[in-house]
Amino acid sequence: MSTRECDWVIGFDADDTLWHNEIIFERTQTCFRALLAKYHDAAVVDRTLLATEMRNLDLYGYGVKGFTLSAIETAVALSGGKVSAEEIGEMIRRGREMLAHPVVLMEGVVEVLADLGARHRLLVITKGDLRDQERKLAKSGLGEHFRHVEITSEKNEVTYSEILRRHAIMPENFLMVGNSLRSDILPVVALGGTGVHVPCAVTWAAELVEREPVAPGRFFR
Amino acid sequence: MSTRECDWVIGFDADDTLWHNEIIFERTQTCFRALLAKYHDAAVVDRTLLATEMRNLDLYGYGVKGFTLSAIETAVALSGGKVSAEEIGEMIRRGREMLAHPVVLMEGVVEVLADLGARHRLLVITKGDLRDQERKLAKSGLGEHFRHVEITSEKNEVTYSEILRRHAIMPENFLMVGNSLRSDILPVVALGGTGVHVPCAVTWAAELVEREPVAPGRFFR
Repeated sequence: MSTRECDWVIGFDADDTLWHNEIIFERTQTCFRALLAKYHDAAVVDRTLLATEMRNLDLYGYGVKGFTLSAIETAVALSGGKVSAEEIGEMIRRGREMLAHPVVLMEGVVEVLADLGARHRLLVITKGDLRDQERKLAKSGLGEHFRHVEITSEKNEVTYSEILRRHAIMPENFLMVGNSLRSDILPVVALGGTGVHVPCAVTWAAELVEREPVAPGRFFR
Repeated sequence: MSTRECDWVIGFDADDTLWHNEIIFERTQTCFRALLAKYHDAAVVDRTLLATEMRNLDLYGYGVKGFTLSAIETAVALSGGKVSAEEIGEMIRRGREMLAHPVVLMEGVVEVLADLGARHRLLVITKGDLRDQERKLAKSGLGEHFRHVEITSEKNEVTYSEILRRHAIMPENFLMVGNSLRSDILPVVALGGTGVHVPCAVTWAAELVEREPVAPGRFFR
């Protein structure tokens, strides 16, 4: 890598790569389980919520607002129509709290970005809700490190290849850093780029994949 | 305009400029009024919903999901906690129907875009929910007419000037077409561009402004 170091363009995922995210969802989900404990046990609540989120994903996309709507829908269904208006109001309040939550950076992120940013062009490539991602980036104070910020509704081969084309980046010079094999690593490696997987302690079930890519020299963990 | 016609870059707003949008919200709001009619009259429901939307706008941004969450919050508040789980479920279903609604083009749009697209570079500049706007553009079948699609969380002088910079467009060569004076016309004219206001029969209260810009030769209605 050393002889052509200046050619590398490095993309960073945001949620659970630059800052904590899933842990905020987990905390809300814990309250949600407690709220529905009188109707069903935690396993049923988790399973039904995930199934509802997956069913709504194409319409809602990723992010807190879709999660909140799916959680309310799950509560209506699992309570057999008995969930109260007050409890619904509480769920909406918790959704707003998630959106207003302070951004807590991953350890060492500032140092890593300062170091890499001095030598390489850095990008943020994140999927989710436009306004929420913009707000988190602004709150993070990390904006100055990045040449471009790309917020997409999905992260797959099509979206990555469109981003690389738009910024005239050759896949062989592109390295993507992220916590999700499915969204950050597999599509980039498939395009001929390099993926650096930085596993996070908590990963959303929908982002889990079984296998790591087989791409010697182009996949790091 | 004729001697330098080829220099013009034309931006189009999407919702209520290329296709109908507000009318879908209006229809849902009619059902919402009926749902809350036993608690309050239509004027109170409308006023409270708009106030709730405005209060949540910074956190939620524009779009159907934020509207649905604000509507549920309004129902909980205006019913004094008496709205039923079934009614909440119905509101979530209506929100999903709005997202899945067919795209109905404004009259003459295809002809206008084909005509202008043959001579000018066309852009879509729309604000709102990323996935919903992408889906509507795909459903509209209009994508081929546009060189770039810009989906932003807000449309003001900052966002327009960033878009013009990114695509190396001089404001004096930029013409924006849209139904909202506030979002489509005033910021563009303030930057030195030209605005073409295409009023729509129904306009969301939050987009209403009193005055048209005073910019001879750079504002058309």
